Amino acid sequence: MTPEFDLIAKYFTRATPRTALGVGDDAALLVVGAGMELAISTDMLVEGTHFFPDADPRLLGWKALAVNVSDMAAMGANPHWATLALSLPKIDDAWLKGFSEGFFDCAQRFGIDLIGGDTTRGHLTISITIMGDIPRGGALRRDGAKFKDDIWVSGQLGNAALGLAALRGLVDRDGLESCIAALHSPQPPAELGLALRGRATAAIDISDGLLADLGHILERSGFGADIMFDAIPRSTLVSAFMGDDIGRNCLLAGGEDYELCFTAPARLDDEIRMIGEKLKIKLTRIGKVTSGQGIRLLDVYNSPITYEGKGYDHFAEPPLVALPAQEKLDEEVSAEETSLHETPE
Amino acid sequence: MTPEFDLIAKYFTRATPRTALGVGDDAALLVVGAGMELAISTDMLVEGTHFFPDADPRLLGWKALAVNVSDMAAMGANPHWATLALSLPKIDDAWLKGFSEGFFDCAQRFGIDLIGGDTTRGHLTISITIMGDIPRGGALRRDGAKFKDDIWVSGQLGNAALGLAALRGLVDRDGLESCIAALHSPQPPAELGLALRGRATAAIDISDGLLADLGHILERSGFGADIMFDAIPRSTLVSAFMGDDIGRNCLLAGGEDYELCFTAPARLDDEIRMIGEKLKIKLTRIGKVTSGQGIRLLDVYNSPITYEGKGYDHFAEPPLVALPAQEKLDEEVSAEETSLHETPE
Repeated sequence: MTPEFDLIAKYFTRATPRTALGVGDDAALLVVGAGMELAISTDMLVEGTHFFPDADPRLLGWKALAVNVSDMAAMGANPHWATLALSLPKIDDAWLKGFSEGFFDCAQRFGIDLIGGDTTRGHLTISITIMGDIPRGGALRRDGAKFKDDIWVSGQLGNAALGLAALRGLVDRDGLESCIAALHSPQPPAELGLALRGRATAAIDISDGLLADLGHILERSGFGADIMFDAIPRSTLVSAFMGDDIGRNCLLAGGEDYELCFTAPARLDDEIRMIGEKLKIKLTRIGKVTSGQGIRLLDVYNSPITYEGKGYDHFAEPPLVALPAQEKLDEEVSAEETSLHETPE
Repeated sequence: MTPEFDLIAKYFTRATPRTALGVGDDAALLVVGAGMELAISTDMLVEGTHFFPDADPRLLGWKALAVNVSDMAAMGANPHWATLALSLPKIDDAWLKGFSEGFFDCAQRFGIDLIGGDTTRGHLTISITIMGDIPRGGALRRDGAKFKDDIWVSGQLGNAALGLAALRGLVDRDGLESCIAALHSPQPPAELGLALRGRATAAIDISDGLLADLGHILERSGFGADIMFDAIPRSTLVSAFMGDDIGRNCLLAGGEDYELCFTAPARLDDEIRMIGEKLKIKLTRIGKVTSGQGIRLLDVYNSPITYEGKGYDHFAEPPLVALPAQEKLDEEVSAEETSLHETPE
């Protein structure tokens, strides 16, 4: 047995009750139920781009899987299975113990089997593919929004982005512990995604910021939107920064919220409110689908608000830390950054 | 549209005729046929660990997917779908064009839809999850080998490892172009995997070297093996190095062959030979499953040959190039390397 196999056996092999064959063969095997479709999504997290080099491995293990659960929720899929590909600079047992515990905490919370993966040496990089099932034709796609639908979001927006701003030293971190926790331990509303099946006309998870992600729904569906700026749910912590650009950026374009944005016909408003109450998830109606193009932000007097921000783009943003190999890149893309840099700074 | 979305649209979005919903939503959707299981496998390739920094992107695109096809072949699964997660130091259009073309060349050859993925900034790292289908219960698992089964391998072993030795400058590369090509452009015997369903009792793809990979079958199945050293199929190029350690290492422990090793009852020998002829794939019987433990290598006089090599382990091997971040690691693991270093050098 070589170390590579040892570490899979030691840290990443647990019971897979939802799976025909789990870790340890050339491939895992699973059975999709009759009448169900399989939903699949992949994410990659890179040290220095998505998380700080000193990130707590346990929190990182949770988050790496949770952001994938968020994609399942946005699709209305029930997550059951995941694969994990991990490149590590070295075999660090303390790190692996923490990371695997956080990963399996999340897996247990959402009922997910780790069914396979790969470990190798390299820059710390985590790639997860998640799979879930969904009744055939029942997925909450991005392209189903209808004219005059109401637009909803779950939870509060901007906390995670404000937490990141604090960690970057852009704002004083005193009192922002809950925002930093929102950044590190996203709690995707998986049950909400399931409850919205057959009700929401379109859905997306807010990973790149409200405007960017709602923009994907609108673009795919061929409509515009009016959004009431003051209706967008936010914590008092984020509200406190609303006088500065940073507050708006966190709220509208900060990303990493891992809440759902969805559209539904107005006649379902009461039903949706009841779902929120039952699941104890805050659901807020923030606007309407229009026949226009793009998103109009409106103030309390229905006057448009000017906001130039866009969604998060890892290629346009500076890395969280200056990696030796990226210094040259930073120079090359600096022109782009100037126009595209919208996250808190 | 941000560059991150642009590059997915530009390079990685093609028709997905085998898929209910492809790239562009929170998740892809696919339907697994009635009576079929889904087989899933994940691999991760890291620049400097798995390939040289100056690797031809087109060849790399082919290989990244081909090594996953190899896992499907080893399972007897028919590959249909893949996701691709890619971290890149920068958006390099020439590289992306070449890589995506190589990837889709391989996808077209084996009938695979690219159904989703992720792109981000980081050290060049490629993670692919492949999915295929297989009649329920029909998978070629590692744990099914039976006492007295014959042991077979497809193709020739050792070429890719000799090609790597040439690229590392450990042997003169003159005349080894075909070995370098074997390293860069593996041709996994996908059709063989399908033909072996219901015939082979166990199978694995040879990615870490014959002894290591056959060892997995034996360990899982609870048997040993006698292998006739001279029967192991090899090119004249590999044979030419058989007087040195390097030839044996390439043949027995070199890895990256992406051929199949499988077991089958002796009564199926003729049938298996006919499959090889029909598919124009060289199939060679190299030994037998025994009631012993581990693998005995036998010479033409049935006398045991001593060989201390083991399979490839990325954590024990030095990187292909010294990456700045890995210099420290290299020092730390040097003790392990001394004892575990078995690939050609």
